[in-house]
Amino acid sequence: MTLYLIIGAALLAVLYGIVTRASLMKASTGNERMNEIAGAIQEGAKAYLNKQYKTIAMVGVVVTIALFFLFGMKLIAPVGFVIGAVLSGVAGYVGMLVSVQANVRTTEASRESLGSGLNVAFKAGAVTGMLVAGLALLGLAVYYMVLTGPMGADDRGVIDGLVSLSLGASLISVFARLGGGIFTKGADVGGDLVGKVEAGIPEDDPRNPATIADNVGDNVGDCAGMAADLFETYVVTIAATMILGSILFASVGVLTLYPMAIGAACIVTSIIGTYFVRLSKGSTNVMGALYKGLIATGVLSVAAIAGVTHFVLGGFGEVVGTSFTGMDLLWCSVVGLVITGLIVMITEYYTGTKYRPVRSVAAASESGHGTNVIAGLAVSMEATAIPALIIVAGIIITFSLAGLYGIAIAVTAMLGVAGMIVALDAFGPVTDNAGGIAEMAELPPEVRNTTDTLDAVGNTTKAVTKGYAIGSAGLGALVLFAAYYQDILYFSAQPGNPLSGVTVDFSLTNPYVIVGLFIGGLLPYLFGAWAMQSVGRAATAIVEEVRRQFKADSGILAGTSRPDYAKAVDLLTGAAIKEMIKPSLLPILSPIVLYFAIYFIAGTEQALASLGAMLMGVIVTGLFLALSMTAGGGAWDNAKKYIEDGNHGGKGSEAHKASVTGDTVGDPYKDTAGPAVNPMIKITNIMALLLLAIVAH
Amino acid sequence: MTLYLIIGAALLAVLYGIVTRASLMKASTGNERMNEIAGAIQEGAKAYLNKQYKTIAMVGVVVTIALFFLFGMKLIAPVGFVIGAVLSGVAGYVGMLVSVQANVRTTEASRESLGSGLNVAFKAGAVTGMLVAGLALLGLAVYYMVLTGPMGADDRGVIDGLVSLSLGASLISVFARLGGGIFTKGADVGGDLVGKVEAGIPEDDPRNPATIADNVGDNVGDCAGMAADLFETYVVTIAATMILGSILFASVGVLTLYPMAIGAACIVTSIIGTYFVRLSKGSTNVMGALYKGLIATGVLSVAAIAGVTHFVLGGFGEVVGTSFTGMDLLWCSVVGLVITGLIVMITEYYTGTKYRPVRSVAAASESGHGTNVIAGLAVSMEATAIPALIIVAGIIITFSLAGLYGIAIAVTAMLGVAGMIVALDAFGPVTDNAGGIAEMAELPPEVRNTTDTLDAVGNTTKAVTKGYAIGSAGLGALVLFAAYYQDILYFSAQPGNPLSGVTVDFSLTNPYVIVGLFIGGLLPYLFGAWAMQSVGRAATAIVEEVRRQFKADSGILAGTSRPDYAKAVDLLTGAAIKEMIKPSLLPILSPIVLYFAIYFIAGTEQALASLGAMLMGVIVTGLFLALSMTAGGGAWDNAKKYIEDGNHGGKGSEAHKASVTGDTVGDPYKDTAGPAVNPMIKITNIMALLLLAIVAH
Repeated sequence: MTLYLIIGAALLAVLYGIVTRASLMKASTGNERMNEIAGAIQEGAKAYLNKQYKTIAMVGVVVTIALFFLFGMKLIAPVGFVIGAVLSGVAGYVGMLVSVQANVRTTEASRESLGSGLNVAFKAGAVTGMLVAGLALLGLAVYYMVLTGPMGADDRGVIDGLVSLSLGASLISVFARLGGGIFTKGADVGGDLVGKVEAGIPEDDPRNPATIADNVGDNVGDCAGMAADLFETYVVTIAATMILGSILFASVGVLTLYPMAIGAACIVTSIIGTYFVRLSKGSTNVMGALYKGLIATGVLSVAAIAGVTHFVLGGFGEVVGTSFTGMDLLWCSVVGLVITGLIVMITEYYTGTKYRPVRSVAAASESGHGTNVIAGLAVSMEATAIPALIIVAGIIITFSLAGLYGIAIAVTAMLGVAGMIVALDAFGPVTDNAGGIAEMAELPPEVRNTTDTLDAVGNTTKAVTKGYAIGSAGLGALVLFAAYYQDILYFSAQPGNPLSGVTVDFSLTNPYVIVGLFIGGLLPYLFGAWAMQSVGRAATAIVEEVRRQFKADSGILAGTSRPDYAKAVDLLTGAAIKEMIKPSLLPILSPIVLYFAIYFIAGTEQALASLGAMLMGVIVTGLFLALSMTAGGGAWDNAKKYIEDGNHGGKGSEAHKASVTGDTVGDPYKDTAGPAVNPMIKITNIMALLLLAIVAH
Repeated sequence: MTLYLIIGAALLAVLYGIVTRASLMKASTGNERMNEIAGAIQEGAKAYLNKQYKTIAMVGVVVTIALFFLFGMKLIAPVGFVIGAVLSGVAGYVGMLVSVQANVRTTEASRESLGSGLNVAFKAGAVTGMLVAGLALLGLAVYYMVLTGPMGADDRGVIDGLVSLSLGASLISVFARLGGGIFTKGADVGGDLVGKVEAGIPEDDPRNPATIADNVGDNVGDCAGMAADLFETYVVTIAATMILGSILFASVGVLTLYPMAIGAACIVTSIIGTYFVRLSKGSTNVMGALYKGLIATGVLSVAAIAGVTHFVLGGFGEVVGTSFTGMDLLWCSVVGLVITGLIVMITEYYTGTKYRPVRSVAAASESGHGTNVIAGLAVSMEATAIPALIIVAGIIITFSLAGLYGIAIAVTAMLGVAGMIVALDAFGPVTDNAGGIAEMAELPPEVRNTTDTLDAVGNTTKAVTKGYAIGSAGLGALVLFAAYYQDILYFSAQPGNPLSGVTVDFSLTNPYVIVGLFIGGLLPYLFGAWAMQSVGRAATAIVEEVRRQFKADSGILAGTSRPDYAKAVDLLTGAAIKEMIKPSLLPILSPIVLYFAIYFIAGTEQALASLGAMLMGVIVTGLFLALSMTAGGGAWDNAKKYIEDGNHGGKGSEAHKASVTGDTVGDPYKDTAGPAVNPMIKITNIMALLLLAIVAH
């Protein structure tokens, strides 16, 4: 019964997506020129995603076959993997489709009023958000139902199925995040360098051959990439919580269902929350309107989770077979939601134009490019401290309430509201595109002003979502680590299992644990370095192509002939697909290499210890690196905006030039390397769980 | 007998320092103008260090009194602390004195030939190097002799004395590194911004009021700061190895002496090594000449350590009371020396103009400031991977050979050759100053060419030393962590001790360990952020002062009146002293705050677990942050030099301007925040050991 209700909630989210999309499509798409531009963006985005998914599919087929053989020719693992991968792909692809159809409609609606523009753009974001949460929950719940038909809820087959489903989601996510990130920032950095700096034409100018590619990038990076990322975080976190519930409390079946029930309840509250997003008449406080929706979702979620706790666990008293009460678990959820709120606030503090950090970067721009970058790097490092303290406080409180399962439930509640958070985020690329279309279609400046207002808010929501994503990923990875060592305990207690009787020393006093911590610690650094280099190469390719086009046809800069937009899109598509492979393989292969290296040196027990420590090492340096990169990038971006608003000399001043440099540095920081660290943390963890399952088979 | 020989070797190093300094002083100091400039630098450097040490002394007095009361009104701890602090101060101060007397002599010798210039500058560096190693070993050996007079070698009093001595060295080190780093980079960044960029006058131009301050900065930062840093690493590592030997093998007394004996042997080989530094006739390969000295020291050290092993441990067979042989320990030393060599090579690869990384940064400068910084950041992150792998390999090999003690011996051997390494490093500020003096005294351009050749090498050796310092600090901190938990085991086994019977769970499965890892992980980030901000503020103050002077007296820029150099030095002195306090207190207070916070939440055992994990967290993120900052800064610096050598458009091109931006960013990265992470890692560890001793008293 509970399971049917969960599936019902998931289907409700999908239904919301279909209905809202239909109502969106009714909005006007504006004049012919606007449609032509939007058409080019749609075409480019589809072409890129088709190629990206085709490439991932090839990797996916290999993995599927490998899983089939590694799991004793049974279908549970490969089928789970395919479900996770396909649903993640669908969420990203459909989200991107909605996004590229909503952009031009947002432009057109912005001719009418700010409120109308907001309405169209946010609805588009909400479709993506609900699809992400809905499809993720649907996949988990349906596959869980199928698996628990013939098997008990605590059967290893169920766990293998959930891990494989997570792997599918993770695989898509790391590729989509990286590929999309390289595409979008290659276009952005390259286009700006050759357009703004060399040719002296403004952003989004139709004469720049990289303009369409830049707009395509917003959709495949910030929309499809982010959707895949949060789909993965959602699936992985809830699956890990279920696994933990099943291993720790095999006798208390409801604790495996409880995480999904929280997800279901929060989907309903997120849908209700979307209706709170409305601009009061005459107001221009777009951020306030969005926050109304977020706060409503949060408050309603507490009530809904209380209801779920009562319904699923049968009350707030002691949960039979455990040492905690239903009330304890409810408090853990509240902690998760509070962490979400606090991280949103902290990120806004570090990336908003109203506060010290961004203003310090803007002020430092007056003394030059170098001091702007120094100030930005300082902000980026400083911005890690409070989120880390919040996460630590969350760990201590929830662990005291309900042990490891309590930590897991807090993250589950955090992820529960992912639908709403993705809605806020996916709003960003739509408004960004809407501004681009207004510029290229040469609409009157007041339209561009309206879209600029929306776009500025989009920058903040994008930064906020990234803070949330990495915070939840960090905590989610802890849950995965817990699942990893509980799994070892389980196998160790099974007579006849290849791991029977192993005792793994995870103590910091074991040098192989130190080895794992260091190796894990270096992965995010190397991964980040490669991602930044990829953006650099892609941007250089774009610079050369644009220079070539300008040279081949002098009519382009004169505005008499149209540049070859498709060429730039093609070129970036090729570059991004090629560049995403190497860094993506790093987190996939490292756990395997480390395990076998230590296995040959010191045997199974130390190999398992080192592998576990590697997971923690990845989390520790990954969390700080990702937090600093995303916050720093946001601060640089908004320091530029702050100067453009007329401070420190305004547009065209020396300070402005310095702030453009900072923004360029921040681009791959915040949109490629930083966010891609999330899925890389988790795929390392999932690979470890999988390796364990294989070793134990 | 062994102890007397050790003290003899330490005295030999001090004697070498005295004799070499005397021979240095005989060299000519050139013309009157050169002496005037050198006098101003000497005065500024002395004024700064006097004020810095006075400030540290105030903190030191408080700590001394606190130690007196905390250790039951006994003198062991406070006296140890004072010895460590005073000797570290003497090494830094005398090193600085020699450096500011050698700079002008190097300029004068460079008029004669490159070989003469090298000879003077390297000798000056060697004085500092031998004083660092000699005084460090002297302090350890003499205090050990005094303590073991009335007490047994494994008595807690001996350990308390060694920990307190380490604390003294650490305290000076963190302040000196930060204060010196803020001074030097405030002068460098501020002076460049207002001189090179605004006024358009070259570096080291006598019209720039910040010029003398810049040269003072080289001495108080790169010379005195680095000397204090390596003094501390030396003392802390050897003391920790002795403590580990004493706790693990209380019955095998020689294992407490053995680390000091290795240090003694390596002092002798380092002194011999200095005589190998000689430029072949007609050659200009300065780097090659320096490497000859380093390689000679390394090779001789293997032989010398073999001798020491035979002499102290009575042969290469099994060491009675342990599970390893003398041969195993010799191999551990060899691993330590090989790690040193490999880290030197890797650092040169990442920061040398001949290799891909620096060239990629230089090439990226062609497309602008932003891409230069992106490329530099990518290099900085990438540069962490191989050193981390080397350290991991070192841990695995030495642990397999001789357990924790084996790891400790490897680091001891690494630090053994610190005298030679500091010699290479302290050579840098001397040549940097020599160039500045040549410029300001308006000597013929061929002199400046000679000093430039020396200076370029100095940049590389400075980068190389930083890689070595952080690598050895990372490994040294592991030894400290081992001492920390062995200490807990010791106290736990003592009936009647307040910690009697405690069992601390350092496993990654304990959430309080995770909490410690995260809190430890954030410290280097916050510390780094504050250090960068301090440099920014100091540089801004300099910019304003220089602007004021230019405005108040137009004769300065015209070259008719002399700027007020002393004002800039005073201003920076005040700023650096003020700014160094807050970041320095972070690693000192954090262990105490964390311990008591967790103590009140979850009791002693979890507080100790969290504190231990914090030490590991600091090491993990600190190692990667420091490696990336120092390598990245070196790469940016040399990318600029590579362009100035005529590549990518050469001096004055757009690429050159972009590379100047990268260099500015790299300045606080490589000379303030990055290297200051070393002492901050260790002071956190020492504070934990001390806290433990206090809790157990």
